[in-house]
Amino acid sequence: MQQKRIAIIGAGPSGMAAMRAFAAAESQGEQIPEIICYEKQDDWGGQWNFTWRTGTDHYGEPVHSSMYRNLWSNGPKEALEFAEYTFDEHFGRPISSYPPREVLWDYIDGRASQSGVKDLVRFAHAVRWIDYDETAERFTLTVEDLRNRRTSREVFDEVIVATGHFSYPNVPNFDGIETFPGEVIHAHEFRGAERLAGQRVLLIGGSYSAEDIGVQAHKMGARHVTMSYRSRPQGFAWPEGVDEVPEILRFDGAEVSFVDGQRREFDAVVLCTGYLHHYPFLPNEMRIDSPNNLYPTGLYRGVVWQGNPHLYYLGAQDQWFTFNMFDAQAWYARDLILGRAELPSPEERVAHMEEWLRRHEALEDDPAAVRFQADYIRDLIEATDYPMFDLDAVVEIFLAWKQDKKRDILTYRDKAHRSVMTGTMAVEHHTRWLDELDDSRERYLLHQPSGELEHEEQASAPKR
Amino acid sequence: MQQKRIAIIGAGPSGMAAMRAFAAAESQGEQIPEIICYEKQDDWGGQWNFTWRTGTDHYGEPVHSSMYRNLWSNGPKEALEFAEYTFDEHFGRPISSYPPREVLWDYIDGRASQSGVKDLVRFAHAVRWIDYDETAERFTLTVEDLRNRRTSREVFDEVIVATGHFSYPNVPNFDGIETFPGEVIHAHEFRGAERLAGQRVLLIGGSYSAEDIGVQAHKMGARHVTMSYRSRPQGFAWPEGVDEVPEILRFDGAEVSFVDGQRREFDAVVLCTGYLHHYPFLPNEMRIDSPNNLYPTGLYRGVVWQGNPHLYYLGAQDQWFTFNMFDAQAWYARDLILGRAELPSPEERVAHMEEWLRRHEALEDDPAAVRFQADYIRDLIEATDYPMFDLDAVVEIFLAWKQDKKRDILTYRDKAHRSVMTGTMAVEHHTRWLDELDDSRERYLLHQPSGELEHEEQASAPKR
Repeated sequence: MQQKRIAIIGAGPSGMAAMRAFAAAESQGEQIPEIICYEKQDDWGGQWNFTWRTGTDHYGEPVHSSMYRNLWSNGPKEALEFAEYTFDEHFGRPISSYPPREVLWDYIDGRASQSGVKDLVRFAHAVRWIDYDETAERFTLTVEDLRNRRTSREVFDEVIVATGHFSYPNVPNFDGIETFPGEVIHAHEFRGAERLAGQRVLLIGGSYSAEDIGVQAHKMGARHVTMSYRSRPQGFAWPEGVDEVPEILRFDGAEVSFVDGQRREFDAVVLCTGYLHHYPFLPNEMRIDSPNNLYPTGLYRGVVWQGNPHLYYLGAQDQWFTFNMFDAQAWYARDLILGRAELPSPEERVAHMEEWLRRHEALEDDPAAVRFQADYIRDLIEATDYPMFDLDAVVEIFLAWKQDKKRDILTYRDKAHRSVMTGTMAVEHHTRWLDELDDSRERYLLHQPSGELEHEEQASAPKR
Repeated sequence: MQQKRIAIIGAGPSGMAAMRAFAAAESQGEQIPEIICYEKQDDWGGQWNFTWRTGTDHYGEPVHSSMYRNLWSNGPKEALEFAEYTFDEHFGRPISSYPPREVLWDYIDGRASQSGVKDLVRFAHAVRWIDYDETAERFTLTVEDLRNRRTSREVFDEVIVATGHFSYPNVPNFDGIETFPGEVIHAHEFRGAERLAGQRVLLIGGSYSAEDIGVQAHKMGARHVTMSYRSRPQGFAWPEGVDEVPEILRFDGAEVSFVDGQRREFDAVVLCTGYLHHYPFLPNEMRIDSPNNLYPTGLYRGVVWQGNPHLYYLGAQDQWFTFNMFDAQAWYARDLILGRAELPSPEERVAHMEEWLRRHEALEDDPAAVRFQADYIRDLIEATDYPMFDLDAVVEIFLAWKQDKKRDILTYRDKAHRSVMTGTMAVEHHTRWLDELDDSRERYLLHQPSGELEHEEQASAPKR
């Protein structure tokens, strides 16, 4: 029998998890299929592969990463830790709970590199189109080698879509916005808040992007930060110079009116209006068409496309859990492909999805949503040999994190959490997030950075 | 015999010219094939269809237009006038020689609307991929209806690519640019210079984008404008506060070093580094792979793809001439498709292309380049029934325009030229370009705008 061929689209955290999953099986003596991972960027890491570019890249392709220079994890690393490649294993010593982007990139790079899977990736290759032949039960991928500007076709038995859904901005129109004379960007194009110093900044949106770009702008000296929400305010205890207003009525040059009758003038606007599920390489019958939620319709166990069970999606959900959830999904997809797990009948899959969609619709608050996603992951891990971990303990970490944010949105990143994988307590970082202007890995890993003294007092104070 | 089916990709000036060309034949009693024009934007006009958006649009597609709010034509309208739909016919009275974008959009919209061809356009439709079946001699287009998120396939006999090549920015890397704290955009994303007021601006590039964004920034009160050239300075008599420096060595935060040893600090950077020929919907064997020049290789008469003469490109050249050149190309492509003109043998086409490429390579200066393009257009028009016009007179207009710019880069748009189509002398505009901050069509067409008095003195001074 001919060897199966598997295409993975995207070498971000989800695609890397898929390659790791197959490598893990191979190291157990399993024969694994031929795998090709197509990645349009020049390196892997997906969102974590920072670029200064915005819009389209040097190949003319839409820039993937929405990462900004100064981003630190906005959730505790203990909630995303891999169960089979811990922070202790990678760094060899305890680190803090909210590492900056370079440190997290280093962590995921370290794990995938350990498995020797980089050779599976065709970097700077964009998948242009995917066809499925019902008779042959094969996919044909039309791919462009962006460096050599050559297009070609390859045939595969299974396709894993791991392109993410935080790359194509959702950009609604606002009356009169074309008359606004200042900078107007979407959060996807935001690369750092230094240039907002002294400015009156309008952030449109009431979720994670607005929250974090808001505190970044405050940290970097914005004159004022206004956040405009549609449904409800975020309600954090914002520092002086940051506040929330309701929905926008219209722009008139630099002046913006809001539905409560207020008018304010601004120098810059950042649209924090979310992202689109956008898969321009897929015919609509193979494509998720969903808002960003915890259980997109049409995906059995959040992974297998009901319309064609040779097509898999990783990381297509909204995310409390991230890296370890992608692992659970990748291990499950791998086991289906290897025949280690059996796919239930279409009818059984429908029944399973309906049950989970019912639970999903009944979710009433964030704690329930976190528990839902923990249960979802548990269900996946139970079907595979991925190391089970204490998901309830991770739920507690999420709830503590939410409390920390509620208490003080400027200091929650200074808190430390305990790993559920190793029991290791995170260290308090040498510098408070609000005071740290150097986000490099080098600086982060310093034991005794210059300027340590000024933080001794803070470091000895109780944190939780 | 079954009716031929023609696909036009893009409803910008070139695609509109193609539709107009077929409509003109139909009005002469000719039977014309079925035509579908796919346009990814919500309206036609291509570059002239201004949007405040940058990056990707509300459908997740790369934004097409590189237009900015305050753009006025940077060449005299007498050089781009349609030979069979004059400015006099559209506006009913003489206007000035350098209209702002809304006025030019109005002109091309007026012509295409007159032909009743808007129904041929499927707006918000992106062509995803094109296949060619050698045996059937047919193209299959995979198209996405962006509003309804549905993909489908349509078969065509001939395909006209009219997507332009000033939409995908060429964005080289610069050492250390990721450390620059200010705004970094490409000219493609530039929407207006108001926000550059008071700033030290670095424009990277030495061609039209740098030139015009430079004077825009000066007009809007930039503190200083530095333009960095690679091969040679533009050499205009720049006003106080604008100058040119050679190539960049590296960025170090806000400080930039240049190869001549200078260092300067900047607040904002605009990359004016040109555009890519980028056709992500075409396999490489059907795709131009060319720098931006006056005679891309592989295109017979600059229009017919040598590798497949059922495939046509419009406007794929670098451009002195624009709208009327697209007309000449569109009329020629139309006549080939209708069988009114005969395509020479492949060998004859090669000989023809080689002759023109030899002439192209021998071009030594801009005046020679303008004459080359005039000759190129003459050759096309002679093969069709498009009204021949005095191309030598247009060459003289281009040379006068270049002289005007050389004399004063801030006032060349206040000059008036004579139409070679109608003999009408353009009027002097009611307001000098440097003083006009309202670029609307409404304001432009005012006979006696408020503020007229202050310009009476200037208006009576000799202009040329």
